[in-house]
Formats: sequence, structure tokens, C-alpha cells
Amino acid sequence: MSLRVVVVGGVALGPKAACRIKRVAPDAQVTLVDASKLISYGGCGIPYYVSGDVSEHQQLQETSFHMVRDEEFFKSCKDFTVHTETRALSIDRKAKTVLVQAQDGTQSTLPYDKLVLGTGSTPRQLPIPGRELDNVFTVATLDEAIRIKEQVAGGKVSSAVIVGAGFIGLEMAESFADMWGIQTTVVEVADQIMPGFLSPVMATIAHKHLEEHDVTVHTSEMVQSIEGENGKVTRVHTTKRTIDADLVILAVGVIPNDTLAREAGLLCSDRGGIIVSKTMQTSDPDIYAGGDCVLTENMVTGKLGYYPLGSLANRQGRIIGTNVAGGRETFDGALGSFIIKLFDYAFAGTGLSLPVALREGFDAFSTHVIMSDHSHFYPDRDMVSLEIVVEHHTGRVLGLQGACQNGDSVKGRVDALAAILKFRPTLRDVSNMEMAYAPPFGSAMDVLNAAANAAENILNGRAVPVQPLEFAKLWENRVQENLLCIDTREWGNAEPFATRYPEFWKNIPQGQIRNRLDEIPRDKKIVLLCNTGGRSYESQVILRHAGFMEPVNLQGGMGFIKQIGFDPSQDD
Amino acid sequence: MSLRVVVVGGVALGPKAACRIKRVAPDAQVTLVDASKLISYGGCGIPYYVSGDVSEHQQLQETSFHMVRDEEFFKSCKDFTVHTETRALSIDRKAKTVLVQAQDGTQSTLPYDKLVLGTGSTPRQLPIPGRELDNVFTVATLDEAIRIKEQVAGGKVSSAVIVGAGFIGLEMAESFADMWGIQTTVVEVADQIMPGFLSPVMATIAHKHLEEHDVTVHTSEMVQSIEGENGKVTRVHTTKRTIDADLVILAVGVIPNDTLAREAGLLCSDRGGIIVSKTMQTSDPDIYAGGDCVLTENMVTGKLGYYPLGSLANRQGRIIGTNVAGGRETFDGALGSFIIKLFDYAFAGTGLSLPVALREGFDAFSTHVIMSDHSHFYPDRDMVSLEIVVEHHTGRVLGLQGACQNGDSVKGRVDALAAILKFRPTLRDVSNMEMAYAPPFGSAMDVLNAAANAAENILNGRAVPVQPLEFAKLWENRVQENLLCIDTREWGNAEPFATRYPEFWKNIPQGQIRNRLDEIPRDKKIVLLCNTGGRSYESQVILRHAGFMEPVNLQGGMGFIKQIGFDPSQDD
Repeated sequence: MSLRVVVVGGVALGPKAACRIKRVAPDAQVTLVDASKLISYGGCGIPYYVSGDVSEHQQLQETSFHMVRDEEFFKSCKDFTVHTETRALSIDRKAKTVLVQAQDGTQSTLPYDKLVLGTGSTPRQLPIPGRELDNVFTVATLDEAIRIKEQVAGGKVSSAVIVGAGFIGLEMAESFADMWGIQTTVVEVADQIMPGFLSPVMATIAHKHLEEHDVTVHTSEMVQSIEGENGKVTRVHTTKRTIDADLVILAVGVIPNDTLAREAGLLCSDRGGIIVSKTMQTSDPDIYAGGDCVLTENMVTGKLGYYPLGSLANRQGRIIGTNVAGGRETFDGALGSFIIKLFDYAFAGTGLSLPVALREGFDAFSTHVIMSDHSHFYPDRDMVSLEIVVEHHTGRVLGLQGACQNGDSVKGRVDALAAILKFRPTLRDVSNMEMAYAPPFGSAMDVLNAAANAAENILNGRAVPVQPLEFAKLWENRVQENLLCIDTREWGNAEPFATRYPEFWKNIPQGQIRNRLDEIPRDKKIVLLCNTGGRSYESQVILRHAGFMEPVNLQGGMGFIKQIGFDPSQDD
Repeated sequence: MSLRVVVVGGVALGPKAACRIKRVAPDAQVTLVDASKLISYGGCGIPYYVSGDVSEHQQLQETSFHMVRDEEFFKSCKDFTVHTETRALSIDRKAKTVLVQAQDGTQSTLPYDKLVLGTGSTPRQLPIPGRELDNVFTVATLDEAIRIKEQVAGGKVSSAVIVGAGFIGLEMAESFADMWGIQTTVVEVADQIMPGFLSPVMATIAHKHLEEHDVTVHTSEMVQSIEGENGKVTRVHTTKRTIDADLVILAVGVIPNDTLAREAGLLCSDRGGIIVSKTMQTSDPDIYAGGDCVLTENMVTGKLGYYPLGSLANRQGRIIGTNVAGGRETFDGALGSFIIKLFDYAFAGTGLSLPVALREGFDAFSTHVIMSDHSHFYPDRDMVSLEIVVEHHTGRVLGLQGACQNGDSVKGRVDALAAILKFRPTLRDVSNMEMAYAPPFGSAMDVLNAAANAAENILNGRAVPVQPLEFAKLWENRVQENLLCIDTREWGNAEPFATRYPEFWKNIPQGQIRNRLDEIPRDKKIVLLCNTGGRSYESQVILRHAGFMEPVNLQGGMGFIKQIGFDPSQDD
């Protein structure tokens, strides 16, 4: 008899696994059930459907050759059966059956030889009054997205509040503010946007950029209740203010849907999420699980973590398909690579950010570089800002974050580092990484190489850095700190600062510093700076060689400083 | 006494090494000599200076902060001495001195503790009559580039012949044809452009694209002589024709400048190039060498090869700098990663192309995929064509080539693969490679993952491919081959072919094929095809399961076929 497979869940992992099973084992009888009517859509595309970049919701369900992935498509093209609006109620592992219930209440029993769980995730609920009001959404499904778009495209929304500054929250914020001109406010309980993903300095850059595009962002602020009239939302009350809102999005993260697995006695984490092996098998070897409902090993820390990312779901789905069909493939783990478009910028990262690395117990530091993505003499180019995260002593590279107006450029650098993270690279692997070079597309020494070089100079004690956010604080306390900034750029760049703050900001171009050492006081805290941190590093070498006590070098220079919105020439 | 260092060569490696030495060992006394007047320029930028994308030649010499890297710059900013127009004549290894000669003929002796050779390369000479005529150039130096630009910008050139279809040759061709409207012909002795770099199919795509932009390309053709009048070039005679030319570029590759080293008794290859260790030391441990004058180990083959690439010169220069200053860094080797802009397309690659892999003795195959760089539902996207090269049996990945209108996109994929090549990856490393995903910048399953998946299906015998160029030949001999193409797309796509060639081209959309198996003859050579190779692969699984003998699947589909300029609906 041919292999009977039941797949629960029809968004990303389920269809991927089912299709793969049929390609490897064409005789297999595969049945997929999903509780929703709309299945197999690109969930990550929802913000672009709401914004109008993607005009029809069907496009999110279409293949690249414009066929809608519905029941009929899967039957005729992929040869498996799909039951939509059919909920999996329970698993009888002894009998090897799944009890399912259709929309009309009819229950039936599906026998399986192998079972695949792709039950996905559910938006985390906020236990606040008013969350049941009309126009309060969670963007959990395509159905919900359709209702949101009806509201915004119908001109019925003039102000919106988004609770949670994670990926979905910020992408929805851009969509509302950019395409529909809605007065948009994001409220985030953490002290920065994208906590756990972006480092503080990258978050500061993104935050500033959002505000420049008319998205109001309040961090360190908690939503306490949602107020409404006639059943419809009108206002949001936070710990600090009241905000008018015709529409509210609750986007405070997702939790794994592990109830079906848990009730069947499969091993799950106390904190949520199904535990699976590298072959994507649950504690019952005939039951596989993957995607948003499972925990995945982090390849940098070696610890289990939760990575609800469509890219991982697809990769895991293919591995499950191979294994269910009799093969043996393993999934190495996750890095948590991400990229997000926020108006004119893309922010991307992989591995551990500095706060996460420190929290995970690594003796880590990070450094910042800024450089153009293409040759600095080629006319078409954008600046790439990178922050590389490194373990002290070993020089092991733990992660990378980046920002650039050219998203493909920053993605390329992040993906290249991500590719080697599982091999436990050290700085020399990144410093010497060979990257395709021609002036229209890169530099002979790439910004990624430069990041590793800068970190290596710190590791070896050749460079003593001050980070952009630290510098902003130092500047605030410049009197108490007895601070002197030495601007190693030419006068044209230094002038606005040096003339405004002659006591604290002195211009000595890098080429002159050797002969002007006696102008530099030995009793002040010296910060050396230039546009990117390169010339000031050269100056630091000279000053240290001349016996100055620990002059520090501003990492990423004024280029980075400008991006975080700190402008000493304007601040009083 | 402080360390005395002499550096010979001032383009890429020399200045990089010298600067690094001074940063690591500020006391070192460093002297750099170069035979030219102009030094430390971005040689790879020459075509963009000639085209006018870079307006002034000084820009190629400038730092990112617009300081020209001349003698004065290196003295004041980097604290080392540069002598331009000074040729190194010989090395006395016993006395540890270098004999140099200035422009005025004065000779002097420079003592060294450590010597760095960055003597670069020289254009290969073609032993043909007429090469000494005016307006015959080799694009070897910035001086020469300035003279070429004077000619083209002065409107004195209406037709140009470029001998050699390598990087410089093709970049110059674009520059002439695109920016200056010069009638441009490229003559290449090999049977394809960019031999040794691009695979035949990628070369075919690039060739077609060049011709669409009014660059005439003749392959398998040798230049025999150059004719002139009044000492100036007028015509080029090849083995097949005579071509008018006001200007000729000889760009048939470069050879390492190893004479200085060879005459000093340093170990060199019989075929040219200085032999160095991983620490970049020559056979004399006090003499380092790197860049275009040395041979470098290929990290895929383990063999020494010649990689005259600016990107490698910079990386090696930094390592030499560290080591000369007392450190110990090693250079792992080269992959030969490249990218080239040709009008609207970028072509990139890393590792071994299929012809090179076969020549190197690998039992290799390649497969082709085509997919959009961003989500197929996101409006801003371009198609990426990839060819991945894989070793049979082991599944080891040997190389990747790609083409895309978005150069950053194809570079990102090539760089990500390049990053892991030294770890000897197999297909599973690429199939599961995690890449940052959001719809504006990628797909949940990236085109690079898809390439590995397609190759894995071939390796496991699940997919039986026919390559685009093989298919073009099959089609030519369709009668003798008893060929039947089954077009698994919808009728709209298949119609022009199926109506024109009803005997050879049959439309059965993939979703219908299971029920129409009896329409497919069992005595014909079946080629299954669609836009990308995806649906036709599904159909192949069905046909093979139904017992059809070896139907083959067109890799990369009609998407790839269109790019190589083969259009069965038009060919008669």
C-alpha cells in the first residue's frame, strides 16, 4: 500500500513539504488540512498588499507563473488533496489518525503513516481592555489583511496606532504612512525599536528615519487600554499619553501553535514550541514538525530558539518532504537572518546583535564602519553602515547588522557573512573574504572586509574605539568629561563644529597631526574623529606612538553620527 | 635602529602594504618606488574614466575623502617616502639593497631589512605587424588611459577594434559604444567571450547582449596584422576579415612582472609568476611579494594559478604589511571571484566554471536556474540566471556563475557562495543556506537555494536535464532526433511554438499532464519545458513514474533559452 501522509497547516511549511513528498515519492497519498479558507500565501507579503505595492491579495497566493495555489491547483498540479476550513482537533498516535472538523461541523478521521505538523503561530494577545473593538487587528492571516486594506483603501482611516515595533509592526507603519497618508504612531514597550534584532545604534538610525517619514515612534511606553465608540476603536491609552486612532494593529510578536502536538503528548518546550530533531522529527518519529510551531537550534549559540521566519519554514518543509518520502536530510539550525525595508532604507542582520551576544554570555564587542557599496569613484553608489559583533580573545565573529539605501547591497554583505557563520569564523575569515569586484558593484576592499579589519585592530589593541552612542553621551557631558574632539578632516568639514565649540572641537587634518602634536593638550580626554573613522584611526596610531594616554577613535566617524541624528553643530 | 622597508610598485599592493606597515610599526622607515609618474590609482576604474562615468583621472587616485594619493599625501598622511619615475633595476640579496634609477638616469642604492615586491603585470604582447602604430593601446597604465580618453573625447575616433574579449576588453567596448557612439568591434581568438571565466551558456547570453548594444563580436578569429597610414592605425586584418579602425586596444591578458625577482634568484614559476608562501614570503624570507606578480593557490583546486585581480592585491597587501611589521597572517588562496558590467547586465562568478572544472579533472556537471531576485509578487524585481557547478558522486559545489540586470543582486548570490567555497561545501550547504528575506529583497527560498535544489535532484537521479545549449542543438536536428517538446505552460505561452511546429511542439499544461499521458508518444525523444524548468520538472516526475523512457527537462526553461537568443518560433 502506498504511503499515507497527513499534513496539518497550509501556509508555508505544509504545502512545501507536501509538494516535495509527491516529487520524491509520487505514489504517496497526501492530504493537507488547514483551518482557513485562504492557504499557501506569502505571509511576509501582507504589508505590501496593504500598501498597494501588491494590488490583489491573490498575487500573494500565486506561483511565479500566475496560478493561484488553491485546492484545485494542488490537486491537478501537485496531486494531493487539500481540505480548507478544516481544523485538526486531535491526534491519536496509537491508531495513527488525525481527527478533523470541517466548517459545517462534520468530523472525520484521517489515517496516516507519517504526519506533518505545520501549525504555524498565533499573534501574542495583549491582555488589555478594548482589544475586541472593531478595527483592532493583529495581521495574523490574509483574511485579516483584506479587511485592513478595505478600511485604509476606503479612506476610512485617518489615524492608526501600531502596538509593537517589530517587523510586521514597522512594515505596516510604513505602509500606512507612505501609501495612504495615515497619521501613524508606533508604540513599543522596549527602549528601542526592533528589540532583539537591531542593536541600539542601528535602532536609533531606523527610528530617526521613521520619524523623518512622519511615523511617530514612542519607545519605553506601554499600551494600557483601547477606547472605542459604538464598538469601534477611537483612542489608545498608553502609560504616557492618549492617541487618537481609527485603526489599531497589535503586533507584539507571535507564539507557536503547539497545542495539537502538546495534547498528543509530543515533547514541547515549557515556554512554547515543539521540540524536533535535526531530521525535523518530533518525539514521535512518525510525526514531523517545522516552521513557526517548532523551536530551532541557533547555529551561533547552539541553544534552542524561536525563529518564526518564512525563509526557514520553506527550507524545513523541503527537508521534511525528503525525509517523509524515505530520504534522510538534516537541518543545521537557524541564524535568524533578517532584512526589513523602512522607507528609503533597508536594515538587515544575521547571527547575534551585540545586546543578544552579551545576554547569551559572550564576552563580545562590536565595531562600526561606513563605506560606499560601490567604488567611491563610481557615480552610482550608496553608503553601507555595518556593525560587526565579535568575541574578545578568540576573534570569533558572532553576527553582523547593516543599513543601506540599497537593500540588495546590504543583503549581499549580510548573506555572505551568514553563509559562513555555521563554520565558526574568526575575523581573519571575514577580513580575507574574497568578494566579486568591479567599480560599479563594489570596492577592491569591501565594506565587510573593512568591518573585520576594524574589529581586528581593536582586538589587537591597535585601535581604541568609542562607539557612536557612547560618543553622543560623552559630548553631552563634555564639560565634566574634560573632552576635546580632534577633527582630523579638512577645514571645510570641521569648520561648523570648530567655530561653534572652540574649547571642545579642534581641527587638525590628519596629514598635519605629526607636526602639530604640541597643540594637543595631554590632560584632556581626546576623541579623534573624521567622516568614517579611517583617518582618525591613523591619527590615533600617531598620538599613541607619541605617548598620549588613550586617545579614543570615533568608530564609523561623523558618517555614523549623522545617521543617528546627533549633530553637535546644532544641539544647543 | 628602526626597521627599513623598501616597497617596489605603487599601484595597488605596494601602497596598501606600506600603509599597513606604518600603522602596525609606526617607527618603520618605508620607501616606495614606482617607475610611473601616476601611482596608487584604481586600475579597475580605467574603463569608467574612459567612458566618462568618472570625469577626471585624478578621481581614480583619490581617497574616499577626495585627497589625491600622491607623494605628498603618502609623506604627510602616511609617513613614508615615495619616489615616482624611479625604476628598481636589481636586488642584491646578500647586501640587502635595491638598486634604483631615477628618471634623470641617476642610480642609487636603497638598503632594506624587508623588501616588498608589488611589481604588477604587463599586458601580453601580440607579435603582429603594426602594433607599434599610433592609436594602438594596451590600457596598461593610467597615462595610457588619459591618452585614449583624449582621442575618444576629442571626437577623433569613429571606429575601434578591441582585440581580446576579457574583462578590460569588454569594459572598454562598452565604454566606446555606449558613451562615445564609436563603431566597436571585439575580436576574440577563443570560441566564446570571456573564456576561462564564463561558461559557454553565460558567454552566449553576454555575447547576445553586447550585439544588442551595437558591439560587434567575432569569436574564433585571430588578428593577424594592423595596418596604418602616416604612422596611425587605419585597419585591422583578422583571419576572416578586414575592419576599419581609428583606434585599437590590445587586451589579450597580462603577464606577471617577475623579472626583478627572477634575476635576484627568487623562486618563480617556469610559466611566469613569483612563488610565495601563505605568509606571502618569497623563497627569500626577507622578501615579500603579492598582487599581479605572484601566483596564488586556487582554493577549489588546490593548484597554483594566476589571479591578477585588484581585490586580491589589496587583501594580500594588508597581510604583507602585517607580516613585515612583525605579525603573522596567512592568505588562504584565491577563488577568482569576478563581476563585470556589460550595458544593462552584470555577469559574475566564483570558483570553477564547468569547462574549467572539467579541464581540472573534476567529474562535474552544472545546472541552470532562473528566478526573480525579489519576491515574484513584488513589483520591483529582476530575473537572476544562475549556473551552479557540482562534482558528481560527492555533491561538492565547485563554482557558480550568474547574470542579472541588478548587479548587486547577482553579486550577493555569488559572494555568498564564494564565502563558503574554502570550506568545501556540498549541495546541502547551499540548499539550506539561510538568506535574509523580505519580499522587496528576496524570496523565502532564494534563487541560490533553488540552484542547489535543482542540482541535488539531478545528482539523485530524480531530474534528467538537458542544458540550454544542448537543447538548441537538439532543436536544430529535431527531425533526425525524432524530437517532441512538451510545453507544460498554459496555452498563452505555448501557442506561438505549438501552432508553428505542431509535429515537434505540443502543449500540455502541467496540471493536465496526469490525465493526458496517452497523448504522449512513447517512441519520441521527449523534452519537457516551461518558463524556468520548475513545472516541467514536476511533469518529468509524472512521466517517469508512468514509465516513459528518459524524458528530459530543459534546465532554466524558456527563460534561459530566450536569454541566449534562441527562439524556435522565429528561427526559420
